[in-house]
Amino acid sequence: MSRIAVLITDMFQDVEYERPAAAFRKAGHELTHVGLKAGSVVKGEHGMIVRIDRSVKDVSVGDFDALFIPGGYSPDKLRVDEDAVRFAGEFVGSGKPVFAICHAAQLLITAMVLKGRRVTGWKSIIQDIKNAGAEYMDREVVVDRNLVSSRKPEDIPAFVKASLDMLGEKK
Amino acid sequence: MSRIAVLITDMFQDVEYERPAAAFRKAGHELTHVGLKAGSVVKGEHGMIVRIDRSVKDVSVGDFDALFIPGGYSPDKLRVDEDAVRFAGEFVGSGKPVFAICHAAQLLITAMVLKGRRVTGWKSIIQDIKNAGAEYMDREVVVDRNLVSSRKPEDIPAFVKASLDMLGEKK
Repeated sequence: MSRIAVLITDMFQDVEYERPAAAFRKAGHELTHVGLKAGSVVKGEHGMIVRIDRSVKDVSVGDFDALFIPGGYSPDKLRVDEDAVRFAGEFVGSGKPVFAICHAAQLLITAMVLKGRRVTGWKSIIQDIKNAGAEYMDREVVVDRNLVSSRKPEDIPAFVKASLDMLGEKK
Repeated sequence: MSRIAVLITDMFQDVEYERPAAAFRKAGHELTHVGLKAGSVVKGEHGMIVRIDRSVKDVSVGDFDALFIPGGYSPDKLRVDEDAVRFAGEFVGSGKPVFAICHAAQLLITAMVLKGRRVTGWKSIIQDIKNAGAEYMDREVVVDRNLVSSRKPEDIPAFVKASLDMLGEKK
């Protein structure tokens, strides 16, 4: 069983959170929703509600075994928060698994941890990924050391499989 | 009187469109709303409705004297469209005035026209602006040759003034 931090705020892409989260739970992993304010409720683009368990300013990488960053416009809102940027950046640097789908790479760009990494993401941010010094790959899932990334909702099955495989290896 | 193209789609930031548009019209300029599909209606983050006059695939820089790109998540949606990226990029290259507020610089990053330019924008995209080879400046308005940029709704008065000044110089 792994402890997975889900870094999330308003306007997350609903299915990009919901389906991986359900699959991670089904596989026996424990999810902690980390956001800008503990106890608040955040809303997906299509209305899904998620309760924030812990504030990102109060967590550290040592509290978790893996990090999951759903897409949508949530990463755009998180990347203006210094603590969210620090937490995501330290996670990538720690070598622990990081699962990033759709716009999630935006947060990692601000954290300046993508240089030299192979990454994929939603097509709107392709140039941003390249400009960050990463190698963009147009694939349903890209695994680069501890970083698993995917492009869009259609990629979720491959994203979940690669993420669960990585957690399995960890055991 | 200048012919200003407004490049816009769903989830634009309402006041970042509405206030500059009203000021441009009041000064006697003519606005043409350019989007992904002529005749369609697009909606702002807070519900404002705008009718698209012309499809971006059917316009060229020669049809207009200036380009205005409102912020919000509209630029994220436009930058996946090749014609929108081409149109915005050619406008910057033409030397005609380009007015970009908030997230608008995202479209110019994808068009790869910011290298060596001084630019500002919403704080979430600061690292993207820097990685694109531009000099980010934390000011309410930045004027760099034909490019006027601002950060957020509070900057609108300075943004409008600098934009109208540039159109005035053009006459």
